[in-house]
Amino acid sequence: MDEPRRDSKWWGWGDPAISPKLDAEALATLRERVGELSPSPRAATLEGFELPSPEPLPPALIEAVGAAGIFTSREDRIRHATGRGYVDLARLRSGRLDAAPDAVVLPADAEAVRRVLEICAVEGVAVVPFGGGTSVVGGIEPLRGAHGRLISLDLARLRGVEVDGRSLTARLGAGLRGPEAEAALAERGVTLGHFPQSFEYATIGGFAATRSAGQASSGYGRFDALVSSVRLIAPAGELRTLETPHTAAGPALRELIVGSEGVFGIIPEVTVRVRPAPRVRRYEAWIAASFEAGAEIVRSLAQGPGLPDVIRVSDEEETRVALMLSGPRGLAGALFGGYLGLRRRRDGCLVVIGLEGEEESVARRRALSVRELRRGGAAYLGQAAGRSWEHGRFQGPYLRDTLMGMGALVETLETAHTWAKLGDLHAAVGAAIRDSLAAQGTPGLVSCHLSHAYPDGASLYFTFISRARHGEEAGQWRAVKRAASEAIVATGGTITHHHAVGRDHAPYMAAEVGREGIEVLRAVKRQLDPAGIMNPGKLIPPESTT
Amino acid sequence: MDEPRRDSKWWGWGDPAISPKLDAEALATLRERVGELSPSPRAATLEGFELPSPEPLPPALIEAVGAAGIFTSREDRIRHATGRGYVDLARLRSGRLDAAPDAVVLPADAEAVRRVLEICAVEGVAVVPFGGGTSVVGGIEPLRGAHGRLISLDLARLRGVEVDGRSLTARLGAGLRGPEAEAALAERGVTLGHFPQSFEYATIGGFAATRSAGQASSGYGRFDALVSSVRLIAPAGELRTLETPHTAAGPALRELIVGSEGVFGIIPEVTVRVRPAPRVRRYEAWIAASFEAGAEIVRSLAQGPGLPDVIRVSDEEETRVALMLSGPRGLAGALFGGYLGLRRRRDGCLVVIGLEGEEESVARRRALSVRELRRGGAAYLGQAAGRSWEHGRFQGPYLRDTLMGMGALVETLETAHTWAKLGDLHAAVGAAIRDSLAAQGTPGLVSCHLSHAYPDGASLYFTFISRARHGEEAGQWRAVKRAASEAIVATGGTITHHHAVGRDHAPYMAAEVGREGIEVLRAVKRQLDPAGIMNPGKLIPPESTT
Repeated sequence: MDEPRRDSKWWGWGDPAISPKLDAEALATLRERVGELSPSPRAATLEGFELPSPEPLPPALIEAVGAAGIFTSREDRIRHATGRGYVDLARLRSGRLDAAPDAVVLPADAEAVRRVLEICAVEGVAVVPFGGGTSVVGGIEPLRGAHGRLISLDLARLRGVEVDGRSLTARLGAGLRGPEAEAALAERGVTLGHFPQSFEYATIGGFAATRSAGQASSGYGRFDALVSSVRLIAPAGELRTLETPHTAAGPALRELIVGSEGVFGIIPEVTVRVRPAPRVRRYEAWIAASFEAGAEIVRSLAQGPGLPDVIRVSDEEETRVALMLSGPRGLAGALFGGYLGLRRRRDGCLVVIGLEGEEESVARRRALSVRELRRGGAAYLGQAAGRSWEHGRFQGPYLRDTLMGMGALVETLETAHTWAKLGDLHAAVGAAIRDSLAAQGTPGLVSCHLSHAYPDGASLYFTFISRARHGEEAGQWRAVKRAASEAIVATGGTITHHHAVGRDHAPYMAAEVGREGIEVLRAVKRQLDPAGIMNPGKLIPPESTT
Repeated sequence: MDEPRRDSKWWGWGDPAISPKLDAEALATLRERVGELSPSPRAATLEGFELPSPEPLPPALIEAVGAAGIFTSREDRIRHATGRGYVDLARLRSGRLDAAPDAVVLPADAEAVRRVLEICAVEGVAVVPFGGGTSVVGGIEPLRGAHGRLISLDLARLRGVEVDGRSLTARLGAGLRGPEAEAALAERGVTLGHFPQSFEYATIGGFAATRSAGQASSGYGRFDALVSSVRLIAPAGELRTLETPHTAAGPALRELIVGSEGVFGIIPEVTVRVRPAPRVRRYEAWIAASFEAGAEIVRSLAQGPGLPDVIRVSDEEETRVALMLSGPRGLAGALFGGYLGLRRRRDGCLVVIGLEGEEESVARRRALSVRELRRGGAAYLGQAAGRSWEHGRFQGPYLRDTLMGMGALVETLETAHTWAKLGDLHAAVGAAIRDSLAAQGTPGLVSCHLSHAYPDGASLYFTFISRARHGEEAGQWRAVKRAASEAIVATGGTITHHHAVGRDHAPYMAAEVGREGIEVLRAVKRQLDPAGIMNPGKLIPPESTT
């Protein structure tokens, strides 16, 4: 890993060779739902991209890292200037960014990270930690805070892998991408089982810093639940928690580092629990009478015999959208046979379950799930539809590029609440998004699924699509985001189940943890990062606003 | 709850009516192992007890709480002056304490707690939060820090119970004892399932503040894992986390409050996950060939099909001690028939498993456990022995009073590590305790069990008995405690799996979380408790020592 990675689209998501198309039927249905789209092909080229000129770095920093660790090309600066939220992509497609890092710095190891932070604290250089660059909440936005200069600290060279096969733990370098970590673990016969939609590009360090949750979180656990110990290199010093399965030695500092989103320091490595690689993987689809009925099935499993490794329930709208948009290679193609055979349930809700492990364990746990699915009135659709979902599980962001090129706004957001309040949350957030889009003259499709469940509640994940207001994408998005966020806060849900806080959710942290909670976060930051160089403007709202 | 509770022995553990005796065989074997004991009957009486005179409270405090909330009798001050560790009991039996609270204050509700802290911060009065008073690590020691006065803030009047039957959560007041909380939950058909040995007297607030782990933690979860949200009243303000099943909104402040041992503020209430009350409870005993073989069975369950609700493996010494000391009403009586029939395994290790829930779930999960037990070479001893363990599960501390009266030192300590290091930890800590006792001329019985297991490791719980050095109990204990703690630290285990830090483990916090970890805890404390009134001298080591 000599250079920063440049293997994904600089202006969009992922592998440039993957470019899903919508078929005629999907196009017609989309048009019927959101109105006529006016195509918005990407104008920007790398060569013509407008970017602020970089400030020169302190000589001490250049000396410490060496020229081979510092990159200042236009492409590298653009690639490190935004995450991969809708507004980020709209800006990239426009060919102009108002801010970018002055340089991309690739430290060779944890010791180099320590030196970089030390120098940046002395010199007053803001540091934005960079893993996969896949944040959808403005988590790597190059905000300088009180500082004149800013570097993106790309952890791609931190790639250690050490497996303890007896304790089933692995110490993993922050810079490993999901597939790289899984490949290294597979050589030892184990898996992390962490498959968020960003899996192909997101990194171990980012998973830890943002409390990522994978699609199989019910079975394997959210990333934060997989972390057994963690290390933090902060400007003021280093923190490392013990590699023990549990401790009662006071407040859990591990849980203060996990989720810290780079504002306290850098997470160079994480020790996580791993599992034997599954021998059998069985995915299948069911159809429930309604979203409520599907959610009740999930609740009965979570509060009873336990959840399968993957379980997700699409609401009525998402079930229809999944069929409409997924095209010939997607769910619809695989599903239509079975689905058309269930005409009387065409307003039902898709349920996907996935089970992984030893054959006997999969069979045993599937039987428990099937019993609750049948008790809840769901009908079996078969494995083809389930496999289809599994195969398409990382495809959403690619489809977003297609839709944006067609002139659509496409965004997602997520929240969670207790079972008692989940129905209210679903209704309130859905209405807020629909109303805000309609009020702007761009009525939208608003769909939702439940995909992470617990004995006491579950997450909701909303996707919405509408016509984009060309040239006003950010303002249009901001109005919807505000409406949805205020609905979440009013219902008492969390502002984020697994996308983290970043810049976009920071204004809602007071609702989440209270004013005193924010003061505690500030106190920890003052201790660990007294010069305030670490990822300014993220997670902790500015003093003036609370 | 008008007055502080006075329903347990003021000088020992629990119900004064319970006073287990050792039979002749047990006495003979004990003598053989630790030498001749010279009886040390309790001399102290309440009437003759020597206690420092109390300092007068600030009038503002008396006015705020009202005379009906303040107690200054000798008995109440003694009852709030120590926890229930060995040295605490030795001091109580001696009839003299060097320190005690100036008064015991019972606030009527959370608002009264807030007012008390406000006044104490202004007036410079140290505050020791008091739940059940069952700390075994000096957690409620009346250390004044920089302050001239000290109150014990007894939360017994905080007794709210609110159940959300749909989300299976319950908001519980800090002052509820284990049996009180379970009785209130039973009326709603649910249970918390948290049964530490201190269950009869310890409180909800204490469970949260110390990260308590119950004997059924494998099935129901440690207390900290059951907490879905928590509230903290600190001198500087109030913190409350959202009642959602999960959030990715930054560092988990819930995990900063849980385990805070009163040094940041008061936890007036906790929201916890509950479960349907079990219909079936099945406890049974097995005998494994060795401690290693028993631990391997637990590891294979934890890393494979999952653990039963209770699982514990006694090492060779504890298996023998359990048989020797438990007397006619204890394990030996119930077990001997079966055990004597297994003469060829007399050097084996006792394994107890417990399963609770619906009949079908108990049967299904038992089958998985039995398969691993048999694969691991264990032999079935029957349900009688398992039930006997279950019935005696809260009896240990009563037996300690008996043994102390006979002239014995009796103490326990616990730690945890990964599976890869557990054998080393067992050997190192056992040797450290044995060597320290022998070096003091009081050779001891040192036994251990594994009782909390995880996919990546397990806890070890040591019990040791020797002759007490009369009049030098504290020094004798301190030498053993230091030797054991240093062995734990040298092996990389945690200084405490579920007894918490208190005063006794504070010197080892630097080994646990590092110097920077301690600075972070101090920074949080400065924010929440700027006057430093909250539980001085606990959890966070004094500045001078790090």
